[in-house]
Amino acid sequence: MKPAAKGKVYLVGAGPGDPELLTVKAQRLLASAAVILHDDLVPAAILALAGRQAHVASVGKRFGARGATQAEINARMIESARSGLEVVRLKGGDPGIFGRLAEEIDALEAAGIPFEVVPGITAGIAAAASLGVSLTDRRKAARVVVVTNHQARTKQSATTTDWHGLIRDDSTLVIYMPGHDFASLRDELIAAGCALDMPAAIVSRASAPDQRDRFTIVGELDKLPRMDSPAVLLIGRSLDRAHERANAGAALALDEAELILSSL
Amino acid sequence: MKPAAKGKVYLVGAGPGDPELLTVKAQRLLASAAVILHDDLVPAAILALAGRQAHVASVGKRFGARGATQAEINARMIESARSGLEVVRLKGGDPGIFGRLAEEIDALEAAGIPFEVVPGITAGIAAAASLGVSLTDRRKAARVVVVTNHQARTKQSATTTDWHGLIRDDSTLVIYMPGHDFASLRDELIAAGCALDMPAAIVSRASAPDQRDRFTIVGELDKLPRMDSPAVLLIGRSLDRAHERANAGAALALDEAELILSSL
Repeated sequence: MKPAAKGKVYLVGAGPGDPELLTVKAQRLLASAAVILHDDLVPAAILALAGRQAHVASVGKRFGARGATQAEINARMIESARSGLEVVRLKGGDPGIFGRLAEEIDALEAAGIPFEVVPGITAGIAAAASLGVSLTDRRKAARVVVVTNHQARTKQSATTTDWHGLIRDDSTLVIYMPGHDFASLRDELIAAGCALDMPAAIVSRASAPDQRDRFTIVGELDKLPRMDSPAVLLIGRSLDRAHERANAGAALALDEAELILSSL
Repeated sequence: MKPAAKGKVYLVGAGPGDPELLTVKAQRLLASAAVILHDDLVPAAILALAGRQAHVASVGKRFGARGATQAEINARMIESARSGLEVVRLKGGDPGIFGRLAEEIDALEAAGIPFEVVPGITAGIAAAASLGVSLTDRRKAARVVVVTNHQARTKQSATTTDWHGLIRDDSTLVIYMPGHDFASLRDELIAAGCALDMPAAIVSRASAPDQRDRFTIVGELDKLPRMDSPAVLLIGRSLDRAHERANAGAALALDEAELILSSL
């Protein structure tokens, strides 16, 4: 008698959006998996890499619509693996950076399902690369702090203290889910000791065809336009040169516009 | 008259070691580049993906041998790009995380050479994935701090303070280049307020066929064996469950060994 096929769950990072920023391993698993359960943020161009045999289902929530609960996602992964199928649980970016990976691992483990985590390019790293920014710099950025704005906000009493320990002239801050209330964020960062002239950049939909980005300084964070999610906010001296480049580019564009206007 | 071909430099992350953890884009650029200048840490299996037309050269230093200086690396990139060639500057992990990317971008910019950064899977993220660890966890790890041990050591007076601001029960520390003096590191972390029972794991050569890893707690960091470079040290409550799994696995292996011994 043949033993039952053994199912397995691959918890796979889909990267930031550009299908070329998938890992080779993620691409291979998408082509071979029997079941693909994906977050809403994973773009169609990546889902198109699924094999023809695959059952592909979204388990995310978007635009306020009700998505699957975490318990439902866990149940679907476990059920499919128990019936001997290879399951890809596809998450935006890297599964281990603000991806609720821990809850899913706990559920798989409790159910005795074999699993493997396949890392992905996380949004903060893709955002920095797209701007030509090195998150660390021997001359000015000795560390990188990856954090959400949301988390700091929910713990009301701890908000200021949270930023306080994190603000240092030699750190690059990578803020996921920065929200839209940049005026409050500016005030909190400054209250925590952040310099007004500290360079900052917001990158919306890093690496996707509709990426948008904007440089500013912490003192003028409130003037940032509203940007589509997912967005990442980068703050630190490591952005100095890219900030200068962006300003030079903007000045050049303005010069050209004036030249064109004056020639009319 | 045909205009001169325009050279360009791609600063590309090679990922942590497993060729399957390359991005699809990195794989494509390796196949098409005319010149590939790589760090020593990039394994042969990845260099084997270079196209037959490519001139492949190591610019790293290893085993104390003299490698190319940063100025020489910069000069080679610029020279090749100026002669119209597509250059891949291949760096281990992600170029923007302790990869000296900033210096190379500055040199390319000063020389007016077009460049593009292609992100890669950094060692810390690959190490966590290999252990089934989520670096963030809504229940216990709100932030990730990426740092080197080396850096903290060079600034003698700042060593304790450096760790002090970084040690929090709800942070995951990812320490690159942890060195081998784990007794000093343990003392410094504890002096900065780190709990003795805080889980820790060292991962050597994450994702490579010869990956080695070991779980411990901060109070027993000094008992870690010497591990090959590159290694990453992970510290935080986010490692709780993986630590328990590893202990359970070790206990099981011990039980089995005793069973075998008793049956002899």
